[in-house]
Amino acid sequence: MFQSLFQSFTDSADPTQGAARVAALRERLAAQKIDGLIIPRADEHQNEYVPPGAERLAWLTGFAGSAGLAIVLADTAAIFVDGRYTIQVRDQVDVSIFTPVAIAQNSPDAWIKTHLTKDQKLGFDPWLHTPAQVAKLKKAAESVGADLVAVSPNPIDAIWTDRPGEPNGPVHLHPDGLAGETAASKLTRIATALDPETTLFVSDPHALAWAFNIRGSDVAHTPLPLGYALIPQAGQPKLFIDPHKLDDTVRTALSTLATLETPEHLTQALQDVAKAKQVLICDAATVAFALVQNFEGAEGKVQMGPDPIALMKANKNEAELSGTRAAHVRDGLAMVRFLSWFADNAPHGGLSEIKAAEALEHFRRATGMLKDVSFPTISAAGPNSAIPHYRVTEKTNRPIEPGFFLIDSGAQYEDGTTDITRTLCVGEPDAQMRDRFTRVLKGHIAIATAVFPAGTSGAQIDGFARRPLWDAGLDFDHGTGHGVGSYLSVHEGPQRISKLGHVALTPGMILSNEPGFYEAGAWGIRLENLVVVTPVTIAGGDRTMLGFETITLAPFARELIEPAMLSSAERDWLNVYHARVRAVLLPLLQGGERDWLSSATAPI
Amino acid sequence: MFQSLFQSFTDSADPTQGAARVAALRERLAAQKIDGLIIPRADEHQNEYVPPGAERLAWLTGFAGSAGLAIVLADTAAIFVDGRYTIQVRDQVDVSIFTPVAIAQNSPDAWIKTHLTKDQKLGFDPWLHTPAQVAKLKKAAESVGADLVAVSPNPIDAIWTDRPGEPNGPVHLHPDGLAGETAASKLTRIATALDPETTLFVSDPHALAWAFNIRGSDVAHTPLPLGYALIPQAGQPKLFIDPHKLDDTVRTALSTLATLETPEHLTQALQDVAKAKQVLICDAATVAFALVQNFEGAEGKVQMGPDPIALMKANKNEAELSGTRAAHVRDGLAMVRFLSWFADNAPHGGLSEIKAAEALEHFRRATGMLKDVSFPTISAAGPNSAIPHYRVTEKTNRPIEPGFFLIDSGAQYEDGTTDITRTLCVGEPDAQMRDRFTRVLKGHIAIATAVFPAGTSGAQIDGFARRPLWDAGLDFDHGTGHGVGSYLSVHEGPQRISKLGHVALTPGMILSNEPGFYEAGAWGIRLENLVVVTPVTIAGGDRTMLGFETITLAPFARELIEPAMLSSAERDWLNVYHARVRAVLLPLLQGGERDWLSSATAPI
Repeated sequence: MFQSLFQSFTDSADPTQGAARVAALRERLAAQKIDGLIIPRADEHQNEYVPPGAERLAWLTGFAGSAGLAIVLADTAAIFVDGRYTIQVRDQVDVSIFTPVAIAQNSPDAWIKTHLTKDQKLGFDPWLHTPAQVAKLKKAAESVGADLVAVSPNPIDAIWTDRPGEPNGPVHLHPDGLAGETAASKLTRIATALDPETTLFVSDPHALAWAFNIRGSDVAHTPLPLGYALIPQAGQPKLFIDPHKLDDTVRTALSTLATLETPEHLTQALQDVAKAKQVLICDAATVAFALVQNFEGAEGKVQMGPDPIALMKANKNEAELSGTRAAHVRDGLAMVRFLSWFADNAPHGGLSEIKAAEALEHFRRATGMLKDVSFPTISAAGPNSAIPHYRVTEKTNRPIEPGFFLIDSGAQYEDGTTDITRTLCVGEPDAQMRDRFTRVLKGHIAIATAVFPAGTSGAQIDGFARRPLWDAGLDFDHGTGHGVGSYLSVHEGPQRISKLGHVALTPGMILSNEPGFYEAGAWGIRLENLVVVTPVTIAGGDRTMLGFETITLAPFARELIEPAMLSSAERDWLNVYHARVRAVLLPLLQGGERDWLSSATAPI
Repeated sequence: MFQSLFQSFTDSADPTQGAARVAALRERLAAQKIDGLIIPRADEHQNEYVPPGAERLAWLTGFAGSAGLAIVLADTAAIFVDGRYTIQVRDQVDVSIFTPVAIAQNSPDAWIKTHLTKDQKLGFDPWLHTPAQVAKLKKAAESVGADLVAVSPNPIDAIWTDRPGEPNGPVHLHPDGLAGETAASKLTRIATALDPETTLFVSDPHALAWAFNIRGSDVAHTPLPLGYALIPQAGQPKLFIDPHKLDDTVRTALSTLATLETPEHLTQALQDVAKAKQVLICDAATVAFALVQNFEGAEGKVQMGPDPIALMKANKNEAELSGTRAAHVRDGLAMVRFLSWFADNAPHGGLSEIKAAEALEHFRRATGMLKDVSFPTISAAGPNSAIPHYRVTEKTNRPIEPGFFLIDSGAQYEDGTTDITRTLCVGEPDAQMRDRFTRVLKGHIAIATAVFPAGTSGAQIDGFARRPLWDAGLDFDHGTGHGVGSYLSVHEGPQRISKLGHVALTPGMILSNEPGFYEAGAWGIRLENLVVVTPVTIAGGDRTMLGFETITLAPFARELIEPAMLSSAERDWLNVYHARVRAVLLPLLQGGERDWLSSATAPI
């Protein structure tokens, strides 16, 4: 019916290859006189989406999840995954080779203490771990008299003969009109924020993209240009990026901002920083151990901390906010067309999770502006909707039958990144489904309507989203909201709404508002809009207050709401929100889609 | 009319003495070849209430607040206070000698960096600072090439010729029936919680009192026995306490639990621990720098952290909870008698803040069970009620006139510690006063009725108390609740309801629930009950849930509530609470007091 260009539903996992590949790896390790190897699902920048050549964990084990780590010893091997993947890992890997370990029960360092023995050498690739990760693993190894040793190049690369090369996606300039600030201005702002005699090492490609107003195509779903930069407090920045990614226009533009160097020159440049007695400010979350070790080996002094660009990037300017609002109108239109299509077709049967994901991508592509989906669509029918991070493949694909259907998706447009979840129902919901849906909606509204003093963190308001569930003895096991970038990552820090979100929310930050509820094995609910932190003026108040502007535009399933459970203020919010969706989108629709939106946004 | 035995309203501050005392101190410092001295408001245990001989800051400067620090250099001196004391400090100290500094604007370490010069020596008393405090001050001094040097004995003690001696309050055994667990059992539990080859150093007298089931009378308002203990993971504990505080009964009882030693032997005992290669577990919040330095000087290995007793002490057992409930019935009766007396007398004029505090203490003493007030009563009329930590003295004493009157007080009974705040109004409140009062009450009810999954911290629910104020652009600048001890400190950690309260709330913890609102210069509101964390069963729920049992029993001022602003659930809570207050206390009252309670607890 429709097709998908930006995501695949093929299950690439092949557990049967594990045995041969692990045997080859063990031979290689023995030749290198190493007793084992740690294989994280990571690239050199700790990216969420990694280039194909960095998918070493998937190649070795078959496991295709977005987070995980294997340890291979001579006679045993384990694969560590978090709660999202404890079921999936058993389908994708050969459990006679790799013992699956739930990371919450047994961490890699705890495992090392019980499996490594005195004088053994456990190898790790120093490019794929941060210094903090290495310190933890090293401590565990040393506690049993073993040693953690850096091995580079990665032994896997020697046996993975058809490993894809470095990605080579062309870099584009992100227009100043959308960025809202020139790269020159940003670089000055960054340098001004640094202490004298320091140099910022930009190891996070998201920060690189923001600072230089560039976008790339080196990984899926996020327009990242892989590379590095050195930004001194005084003097010319250096940008390390493969020259093959730059056309003349881009090269000329970037040359006015920085000295362009190839990534191969990074090590030398770091040693120059060390020689100049500059303190190197490193991003603890993304910097590779190998680089820090090299710098410290040259007597360089490192200051570990959060990348100061992260907070600048999180606070969007007016141009970025206008762009993201426009992106949300466009995306809302695609969502409404999808929802109308779903309402027409789902009751007759014949739809599946994959068909629904393809349809939604089709409507987004029909805008003519879609650059990519911002993550693989979570299209989840029935029991699959109870898995918060479900990803559909041809193997897991369920028909859409009576019951809940949850669709969590997003788009990358040049003017903004979107992320939206709606929970729909085919046929009649029962009383418990309506009760739970309404509680999740009440939590969503509690965040949407929250006002709070400047200085308040996401942790301080996270409970508002949960209280309607807590009142019924229920909860959900994920944060209420994550930060979202501006034509960048759909998962951006440091802003978040969660018990761990200790950064103050400030005007211009974009966050998701996505409470949920999951009845394991049966069905799940999640209701997600994006919001922007916005100043709020309250007559008679005496504090500087902030609140949220909801920017996502699509109706919630009215038939799943139990109106008696809503306060009049909650009902007002819903009706005003639906009226706004209708006012903005109805003029852009015709025929049946127009009729559907009219009835879907009628007041309750 | 009434009198006060447990608190004084005399303003002991005498700014005029500052000049001579500082001159004498400077002479002394010059003789000792030191360029300055740090004078914290602290004793050797970082206690909230300190013995009279530890009031060096008050003696030197005149400042009588509960927290502060002075630094005296040869030609300048500063006194650092927090937001509670920025006004009071200017009344109590000679500002031509001591420059008052608001600690939020300029910390002592920041001040040191701008006032100390190269090669200067700044003295500090190593008994009055924790290692972390010293590290911070030392770093500041060294950043300008100066040095922080320990001076002991304290130079002030040489010039304070009539300094009171060490307190010598008799120690009593806290009955097992009230403690709910024998000291032997507690000591076993503590030892079991320790790692092999470690010894716990108990430097917090609250922990000492709890672990050995003893109470003392060395400081005001908290029944503390000053002393120390060493509790090894294996072997006999040692208790360091002045033998003059122990009568034969107490000495005999304690001898079965520990080796009794005088505090003078502590240093030797610590060196024995070092010699035995035991790791010393120290409480970072209370341990004196001098002791850690001494221990490390003997090659001892220290492990800094929170005192593990703190969490055991926070989780009250059934006997402690029964005791505290009984204490709250008794205290509620005294409060109701006070409120009835206030209602009879306040409208006729002639009352003052001091008279009200005396009356309340009178009604508490009339129970025949009062051991002490748990802190100096905050009795605050009109504008004084806008100062959250106001303390009345003869100098500040205001008549109680039409408007708000706030009274925050508590009692020490052998079976429990209380803390309650009520806000009353003489005459008619205006619409704004009713609005604010009702918002604070809504916040109070939001905490009282909160249910939350096991594992939830106070930080995650603090916002519930604030949302009704936030909705009006308002807030209050203190935590919502602090922990409370069981015939121990009225301010106990680690449990708290505040954005900084990251410890999980667990059954048996006692906390205050005290949102407020303060209109600076005009009036203030605070509504405080104590609550106990309690398991809650919710039909249909799937999580282990907790909630609060409110244990304080006294009516809220009905005439200040705007009923239209309450939801029906909030109104129900208030009416049920008032019905419970009436049911428990009415049978204990006669005549006018009985009539007053009946009408004060009528449903709204």
